[in-house]
Amino acid sequence: MKTPPLLAIHGGAGTLRRRQMDAVREARYREALQAVLAGAGNLLARGAPALDVVCEAVRLLEECELFNAGKGAVYTAAGRHELDASVMDGHGLRAGAVAGLSRTRNPVLAARAVLERGEHLMFCGPAADDYAAALGLEQVDNGWFGTPERLAQLRAAQALGAAAVLDHDGQDLTDRGRFGTVGAVALDADGHLAAATSTGGMTNKRPGRVGDSPLIGAGCYANDASVAVSCTGTGEAFIRCLAAYEVSALVQHRGLDLRSAVQTVVHERLPAVQGEGGLIAVSSRGEFCLPFNTEGMYRGWWRLDGSPQVAIYGDE
Amino acid sequence: MKTPPLLAIHGGAGTLRRRQMDAVREARYREALQAVLAGAGNLLARGAPALDVVCEAVRLLEECELFNAGKGAVYTAAGRHELDASVMDGHGLRAGAVAGLSRTRNPVLAARAVLERGEHLMFCGPAADDYAAALGLEQVDNGWFGTPERLAQLRAAQALGAAAVLDHDGQDLTDRGRFGTVGAVALDADGHLAAATSTGGMTNKRPGRVGDSPLIGAGCYANDASVAVSCTGTGEAFIRCLAAYEVSALVQHRGLDLRSAVQTVVHERLPAVQGEGGLIAVSSRGEFCLPFNTEGMYRGWWRLDGSPQVAIYGDE
Repeated sequence: MKTPPLLAIHGGAGTLRRRQMDAVREARYREALQAVLAGAGNLLARGAPALDVVCEAVRLLEECELFNAGKGAVYTAAGRHELDASVMDGHGLRAGAVAGLSRTRNPVLAARAVLERGEHLMFCGPAADDYAAALGLEQVDNGWFGTPERLAQLRAAQALGAAAVLDHDGQDLTDRGRFGTVGAVALDADGHLAAATSTGGMTNKRPGRVGDSPLIGAGCYANDASVAVSCTGTGEAFIRCLAAYEVSALVQHRGLDLRSAVQTVVHERLPAVQGEGGLIAVSSRGEFCLPFNTEGMYRGWWRLDGSPQVAIYGDE
Repeated sequence: MKTPPLLAIHGGAGTLRRRQMDAVREARYREALQAVLAGAGNLLARGAPALDVVCEAVRLLEECELFNAGKGAVYTAAGRHELDASVMDGHGLRAGAVAGLSRTRNPVLAARAVLERGEHLMFCGPAADDYAAALGLEQVDNGWFGTPERLAQLRAAQALGAAAVLDHDGQDLTDRGRFGTVGAVALDADGHLAAATSTGGMTNKRPGRVGDSPLIGAGCYANDASVAVSCTGTGEAFIRCLAAYEVSALVQHRGLDLRSAVQTVVHERLPAVQGEGGLIAVSSRGEFCLPFNTEGMYRGWWRLDGSPQVAIYGDE
């Protein structure tokens, strides 16, 4: 018996106290997440493959400047934008990834194009933009990704020193810049899974730094035989844990249900290496979980048989 | 009870028929592998940490122009060299990785420096060289990595077309260029594990392409609680399988012994995604395996209680 189609998205996780986000700003985030669920959910309802659905969800998140991916990406220490993305198709274990893009408007579409082309799996640096351009993807000036708010965040980070900012607690999730990533996971009507992840990295990051987002098995993984996972958090810790793949391994090798697997990763594996953040996961059996070990995570889910839901804090 | 220290190395895997390699050339490879085992094994015998030992073994392999890493790296389609490396310390799960270096003489030392610095885990592209230079690592002209033999291989590949070369069967392992990677794994006297991997990629590769070598969990993984693994082969397949981490997951989650775990990865997981190549692995219990699904793999192992051994073909 087939399980109904399912989509989950995230827009980053981090330290957030409700009193610190004003109502207008909070409403904007909730509306943006609802719009992404509506757009990508509609595709899913019409029978689109999970791979198309997660790419469209992440493309919409990239186009929304509230989130740290695509338009609205944070600035590096050099005052530029460097973007990473990956996508994996649980059907056939095909994947594509790009790191260090600076001109390609939608990094997730570049990752998808790499997957479809199938020549290689991952490209990095300026040559990754060249390849994306050769595959027909829209190129923009690096400045296109920026916003006045993100620039102010860079200036604040540089004034405080990066270390201070990492412990700074007075801003909302994406303003803090440390956990800004977007992602989507889906189960389609044919029972296939897919996952996609995209990010601008961390504010004031050293140029060339690569986090978990473009790394298959760390920030993104999908396998029709187990789960689809997209992560957000302190990227280095997610790499050391192979966080996304570990959810799959716990399900496949230990026989854990999805909830037990994600709890193990988010509340045991990650904290053991100082990892903060969360993930979204959907299993081939139609289970889904959106756990995090921070105070909040921008997130939402869509089911064929229910109204789309969005949440930010831990008690929603 | 402690197990005796142990070191294993590889210099790439691929299609090789014994009749196609002349005796002089074969002897050069065997001598080179012996020299690496002697140098790094000596460190291990004197009580050096596994992390130091694998970095020294890989540095020696990088310095030897017979192998496709560091000096002697293959050429990209653009006639340049792009180098990738990673290292992981099983004690504390610390790791460092670099992709797309073009000026740093010893990529494995750059990966090690990223690990030690601990600020981030991975760097890619020209900024990775900048970071390595800032950390004091020797920089060279890109042309330094090349050799007349490698240039001849590029010309041959371009004359035949890359696809033809991939199926070309008339050259020795590294001449074929497809599976050229070097790596080392070690268990030290304190019971700690480490792994390191380094490569020049594949002859005539598209600039910016990243394979499994610099990806933690794909081409390199170490965890004191399970295994240390370094891979060589068709990188894309190793990424899709999370080959290095999967060995660890099968040992930790399924309770397999090392031999069963590596056989599963090399003879089941990899072939399922058209993956060809091999890996070297050592467990925290002192088991070690050097399996491959190709006709040969340049390899060697060193134990405190035995003479160093090297092998190339499958029946040695």
